[in-house]
Amino acid sequence: METMNLAAYQYKQVGNKTFKAIDPSSGKELPGEFQIASLADVDKALDLAEKAADRYRYIDKKTKADFLRSIADEINALGDELIERAMAESGLPQARLQGERGRTTGQLNMFADLVEEGSWVEAVIDSALPERKPAPRPDIRKMLIPVGPAVVFGASNFPLAFSVAGGDTASALAAGCPVVVKAHPAHPGTSALVASAIKKAVEKHNLPEGVFSILYDDGYTIGEALVKHPKTKIVTFTGSYKGGMALVKLAQQREEPIPVFAEMGSINPVILLPDALETRYAEIAEHYTASITLGAGQFCTNPGLLIGIKSDGLNKFKLALGEAITKINSATMLTPGICKYYSNLSEAMLKEQGVSIINKGTVNGDKANQAQPLVAEVSASDFLANPKLKEEVFGPYSLLVIADDETQLQQVLKALHGQLTASIVADETDLPKHKALIQNLTKIAGRVIMNNVPTGVEVVPSMQHGGPFPATSDGRFTSVGTGAIKRFVRPVSWQNWAKDLLPDELKDGNPLGIWRLVDNKWSK
Amino acid sequence: METMNLAAYQYKQVGNKTFKAIDPSSGKELPGEFQIASLADVDKALDLAEKAADRYRYIDKKTKADFLRSIADEINALGDELIERAMAESGLPQARLQGERGRTTGQLNMFADLVEEGSWVEAVIDSALPERKPAPRPDIRKMLIPVGPAVVFGASNFPLAFSVAGGDTASALAAGCPVVVKAHPAHPGTSALVASAIKKAVEKHNLPEGVFSILYDDGYTIGEALVKHPKTKIVTFTGSYKGGMALVKLAQQREEPIPVFAEMGSINPVILLPDALETRYAEIAEHYTASITLGAGQFCTNPGLLIGIKSDGLNKFKLALGEAITKINSATMLTPGICKYYSNLSEAMLKEQGVSIINKGTVNGDKANQAQPLVAEVSASDFLANPKLKEEVFGPYSLLVIADDETQLQQVLKALHGQLTASIVADETDLPKHKALIQNLTKIAGRVIMNNVPTGVEVVPSMQHGGPFPATSDGRFTSVGTGAIKRFVRPVSWQNWAKDLLPDELKDGNPLGIWRLVDNKWSK
Repeated sequence: METMNLAAYQYKQVGNKTFKAIDPSSGKELPGEFQIASLADVDKALDLAEKAADRYRYIDKKTKADFLRSIADEINALGDELIERAMAESGLPQARLQGERGRTTGQLNMFADLVEEGSWVEAVIDSALPERKPAPRPDIRKMLIPVGPAVVFGASNFPLAFSVAGGDTASALAAGCPVVVKAHPAHPGTSALVASAIKKAVEKHNLPEGVFSILYDDGYTIGEALVKHPKTKIVTFTGSYKGGMALVKLAQQREEPIPVFAEMGSINPVILLPDALETRYAEIAEHYTASITLGAGQFCTNPGLLIGIKSDGLNKFKLALGEAITKINSATMLTPGICKYYSNLSEAMLKEQGVSIINKGTVNGDKANQAQPLVAEVSASDFLANPKLKEEVFGPYSLLVIADDETQLQQVLKALHGQLTASIVADETDLPKHKALIQNLTKIAGRVIMNNVPTGVEVVPSMQHGGPFPATSDGRFTSVGTGAIKRFVRPVSWQNWAKDLLPDELKDGNPLGIWRLVDNKWSK
Repeated sequence: METMNLAAYQYKQVGNKTFKAIDPSSGKELPGEFQIASLADVDKALDLAEKAADRYRYIDKKTKADFLRSIADEINALGDELIERAMAESGLPQARLQGERGRTTGQLNMFADLVEEGSWVEAVIDSALPERKPAPRPDIRKMLIPVGPAVVFGASNFPLAFSVAGGDTASALAAGCPVVVKAHPAHPGTSALVASAIKKAVEKHNLPEGVFSILYDDGYTIGEALVKHPKTKIVTFTGSYKGGMALVKLAQQREEPIPVFAEMGSINPVILLPDALETRYAEIAEHYTASITLGAGQFCTNPGLLIGIKSDGLNKFKLALGEAITKINSATMLTPGICKYYSNLSEAMLKEQGVSIINKGTVNGDKANQAQPLVAEVSASDFLANPKLKEEVFGPYSLLVIADDETQLQQVLKALHGQLTASIVADETDLPKHKALIQNLTKIAGRVIMNNVPTGVEVVPSMQHGGPFPATSDGRFTSVGTGAIKRFVRPVSWQNWAKDLLPDELKDGNPLGIWRLVDNKWSK
């Protein structure tokens, strides 16, 4: 495991400030002294990324696809060492991290396929009309091109799938953008191992120096410098509202403002309709208890708000939920800081007007930084009167809001901020009775879900992982699925261009065999 | 012509503050007292727009297309009255405004066709995999939905095509977003006439109240209130950098930040390569003189910067350019303010270090607010040393920058801000000698052009009218062509949704017959 900063695939000694990773399950330091990057490293990484951008943008799609597949292969080749280090640094269990590794390599391979197929560039051709009056129409062709160097912030809660070689890096590299990763300080060893895999893949395909760099810091200096650097063209981030908005503001204040795609948290409301509760309360309680406590509740799609209408069915559901939560053991949270924040916030919520506990999970006393599952309840009127209750409690927590009737339930929905997801639990008999309510869910969320839990984000072309503000800084884009590549590109038109100087995607005869809109007709 | 504010298609008397339009060719007031809207009107328009959004979003695509076509028909039905009023208010000649009307109705009909065809929503379906291990995969379907009420600022320089029923309004309505127009104070009568056409179309198709409103103000109060209003979801603007950035900042400071698509000016560099100059200097000079002075130079794509390498050909071109410009008469500018600004700025440029005049056009003394065409020259070293020379001079002005060699020419290009367009004038023999230069043009512009002038933006699917900052606030989007509709939407995924509650676009059996990506294969 290489603990030095990798700026443009040269490991280098940069100074003598270092930090160590903590095992959250024991609170103890882990092996490895990670060097804190300097501002000179930021310059170096971005200078090289900018130079690399000019060449990397034009490499053929087969090489780019093979490069992405090689990264996946090299990650697999790290074997148990990677899983063990990630377990030690994150407190997450083995099976979860093995699954997450599968998702990470799956994402890389998915983008490899997308790039190799090639149609994602949205090629459009409008032929010249030399005879048009009063003036001839020139030949115009358009496609998406990469915007340039991307800065990717590793996320704490997915040390593989949203980190060094996660969805952001995979989609940026697929788009043709060099990547500078700011490693998350909670898992520097995991980051270093994955970086070494990318480095091997870069070397294997003789890619330009600067296609990939990684920098370490346990504070904010390097992250801020990366966002402010004039050669940075785009930033991705997954974390807190506070952290995300700080980056967004920095990016807006630049001489050339740039987009920051920040995923900033969501409470993922779930509407529980009466007939479903009446007939399936026990199964629903079981299902949602598992979703609330999955991965110690450290999912951005965690269902943090359950909303129902007063009824016998809702009472039975509440009892079943309380019963189910007591059977769940506490789990190690990602960092001591996250755990402390969860404990304080979940306790503080219980002191808010009208909030009372339904039940708690058990505590595993053998381990440190344990998150105790907790479900609470509040009336819709108290909820509506208190904006604090709309805040995300990151961890295995959910708040059941009890409305007097559907009108009040609608008011609760209307009062919510933008969300990643909004779910509805309904029987067939519920649907015709609540049509407007069901239809309105798309107004607040990027993904609407029926009789399914929001946790477990599928990596597919139809996935929208991004919702109206403040769930994400820009709900028009997704960070999961093939659509994630669209964050790293902009369209360019070529007018009356010399035919042999056009990009292959736009050449006559469609040499790449991609889908194109030619004179308003799709063809391949 | 109705001079009152039309908030949600009720004309109403709102107060006693009014303003009048000015005929820039005479400097005299035109008939009609336009009422200045109140903040209550802003509330009213957006309350009704929000309500309309809920219904308008779901109207069938045929009705929406017919509505757009009816707007075009009603604009045509205004006949000569519209053209005459627009001539009086803008100083633009009849043929230009007739052409612009054709473009405006053409845009409306283009969006009608796009909406009626229906594939623009980017429908994607991934079928359920109930047998998948370890967990089944749910059915997920995605498409674009409208974001809600749009505020459209009318632009001064295209009183029809970028104003009340221009490309912004047409694409917003096509996307399913209600529109509140802030009329440009330079052409309130033209605006009122076009608004009456939209009002008739709204009534004809029994569309919800609030789908369209228009508000008047000769100051900034109403525009600012529209951008700050919590029910506004998106803003479009075409105008100055200062005006655009003021709106962008206001939108960023909102509790819920929203996108502002601002087109903010561009100097549209043109590279003149040596062989082309040597063989075609006279023709190129003629061609560009026409482009520089078209519409009194009041095009956002006006070629304000010509760049060449010292040579005999360049000298001959310079003489021909000077000769050609003297043959061009001055023309009336859009407003006294714009004319004054142009006169001052074009004169001030001549006082900058190393800048000297090549030649001027003639002045038409019979009319007021005349813009005198002017071309100037400067060495590349002086250009590189003076950031002021990169500023847009809005009007019939262009600056010829003379580089010592290709290296210096590249430095000039690299020093430029983001641009709407970048053009190259080249003979076939030039192309192999300047490959890197030609390729690099896409790095600074949204549209690159070879041996064509940048003025004359085609309204086609392949058009990209939007470039890197500060040409536009968001170079990932276009304001011209079918792609303009993408500014008003965001994607939503429906997971495990009841089949009959899905939008028609996503239903099994493809009832609308649109192109969809189903299980990673395009089909219709």
